[in-house]
Amino acid sequence: MKTPTSVQPEVEALLERTKAIVAPGLATALRRVTPELRETVEVQLAGGGKMVRAGLVLLSAAACGGDDAKAVDGAVAIELVHNFSLVHDDIIDGDLERRHRPTVWAAHGVDRAIIAGDGLATLAFQVLLDVPSEQRANAASLLADATQAMIAGQAQDMAFERRGSVTLAECLEMVSGKTAALVRCAACLGAVLSGASDPTISALWEFGHHLGIAFQAVDDLLGIWGAPDATGKPVGNDLRRRKKTIPVCIATSHGVELPASFTTSTEPIDDGDVGTLMDVLESCGARSATIDLSERHVRDALAVLQRAPLADGPRGQLRELANFVVGRDR
Amino acid sequence: MKTPTSVQPEVEALLERTKAIVAPGLATALRRVTPELRETVEVQLAGGGKMVRAGLVLLSAAACGGDDAKAVDGAVAIELVHNFSLVHDDIIDGDLERRHRPTVWAAHGVDRAIIAGDGLATLAFQVLLDVPSEQRANAASLLADATQAMIAGQAQDMAFERRGSVTLAECLEMVSGKTAALVRCAACLGAVLSGASDPTISALWEFGHHLGIAFQAVDDLLGIWGAPDATGKPVGNDLRRRKKTIPVCIATSHGVELPASFTTSTEPIDDGDVGTLMDVLESCGARSATIDLSERHVRDALAVLQRAPLADGPRGQLRELANFVVGRDR
Repeated sequence: MKTPTSVQPEVEALLERTKAIVAPGLATALRRVTPELRETVEVQLAGGGKMVRAGLVLLSAAACGGDDAKAVDGAVAIELVHNFSLVHDDIIDGDLERRHRPTVWAAHGVDRAIIAGDGLATLAFQVLLDVPSEQRANAASLLADATQAMIAGQAQDMAFERRGSVTLAECLEMVSGKTAALVRCAACLGAVLSGASDPTISALWEFGHHLGIAFQAVDDLLGIWGAPDATGKPVGNDLRRRKKTIPVCIATSHGVELPASFTTSTEPIDDGDVGTLMDVLESCGARSATIDLSERHVRDALAVLQRAPLADGPRGQLRELANFVVGRDR
Repeated sequence: MKTPTSVQPEVEALLERTKAIVAPGLATALRRVTPELRETVEVQLAGGGKMVRAGLVLLSAAACGGDDAKAVDGAVAIELVHNFSLVHDDIIDGDLERRHRPTVWAAHGVDRAIIAGDGLATLAFQVLLDVPSEQRANAASLLADATQAMIAGQAQDMAFERRGSVTLAECLEMVSGKTAALVRCAACLGAVLSGASDPTISALWEFGHHLGIAFQAVDDLLGIWGAPDATGKPVGNDLRRRKKTIPVCIATSHGVELPASFTTSTEPIDDGDVGTLMDVLESCGARSATIDLSERHVRDALAVLQRAPLADGPRGQLRELANFVVGRDR
């Protein structure tokens, strides 16, 4: 797995361009949220984020002969759904900080965070459905399905925390919802809005699916072994929460017994336990197997991308974005 | 204000018929929610509810020459959004019981209640957008706008609890969002799905708007003076929460000074304070003015209904349903 310390200039330019196109649309959309919630939703959006999903929407439109004008509302909508999920997930996970800033519930309380998230999710559908068109209705339908799949994944993730062990198949099904659902929706939403053919949409959907799984595998590696300075979270953060991440499920699926502090206890996990767990996951090969899994899914994503009937410029940019997403260190 | 102890047989038959048509659609929709959340959302839906909003959707279709088949998904969607709002509101209000049963968060915890509500809201858009059609896309757009207005009203309601006084105009603006938005959406959604003309849709929208305001005025009266056996809530419940309801805002808008325990204190309000507040609101005429306001809005609703170009049978049923909604005692 590549772990560059700085973003490649092409990808940086791509993400800057995405932000320049999507941020005004987001700002306009947020004006439709009631003034009582405006500050609360702005806390979330001000955090920024890389807007990778929005970038996928714009590129998937360009790859199918569409343009930014056709795709921008899709990019705005996907960022709104993504941010809605972060606001609610931060409540559920009890996270106090995101991107080195207080989370919405930490800054404004749980009650306001609940309805602020609701407002962001609803706004996504308003933005897409404002202008009547068959393509936009299809895009909204796809986004609703992806949102439901994301919620299902989140529910599974929560249920897994209370279980001693989870198979790798169960874990990957959860990841397919929690993370990959929105990435694959992003990867084909621009194509849908541009009126692309079904096979092209399907190919981009599959590209996004593999990219989403790879994305989560990298996230899981960072959640255990990532540098706290870069991730903004303590070492072994996901282990402390007994998260049944990909490395953990690879280990248990291979019959590795994890310490009882992780599998059966409900006591807080201390630094010593975290260290032991990290050692076990490393020495049994689960860490490197997770890297392999991530690389396999990136390869599959890029292979699908290569075969799809897409414009070559945007195809190359989708490839760069995919490599960036799995090569990041935060 | 009529306060019948039993529902008129025609309305009872109407609501039974609505339930018979909508319940199977709701059950089918709920199968798309992940098994991890199925039980949680079923806790909410099992409570039943009167399905007044679903009834409005079906009747507004029939009144415009549409039929149940065209309208049923709209009725299902509106009940899903309504129930999503109840699940999240119960968390925010800290309510332990609804319809004499434990609320979702009380039964399954706040975390699961948050995502169960998210799942219900998302499902509403899936149901409407599953089948591509211009009418269904319009209906989904209308529902998204109504949902955002409802969220705005809820945010205002929360902000008002922390304020000493609120004008009647501010209160009615809040009510126009929190309650009336979904009622007026319900009242015209069937018409939209049946391809009715814009003036007809507008008339039903206005009918629903007045009905929604009247509905909330009655709710506010019940929230202060309703019989606990019927409402399932303690006497003066809304006063204990310092809710700036219509009777309260009518009083303060007329220069009536409410006790400091209600306006400026943050201490819990005791039974004695509640009794005093009830007396003040009664003796200053705020209770009867709220009854007047409710009756005025029902009259306006029925006048709009009478003028609109609707089929006479369903028009009569819409009238009965409106009278029932404002005449209820729970």
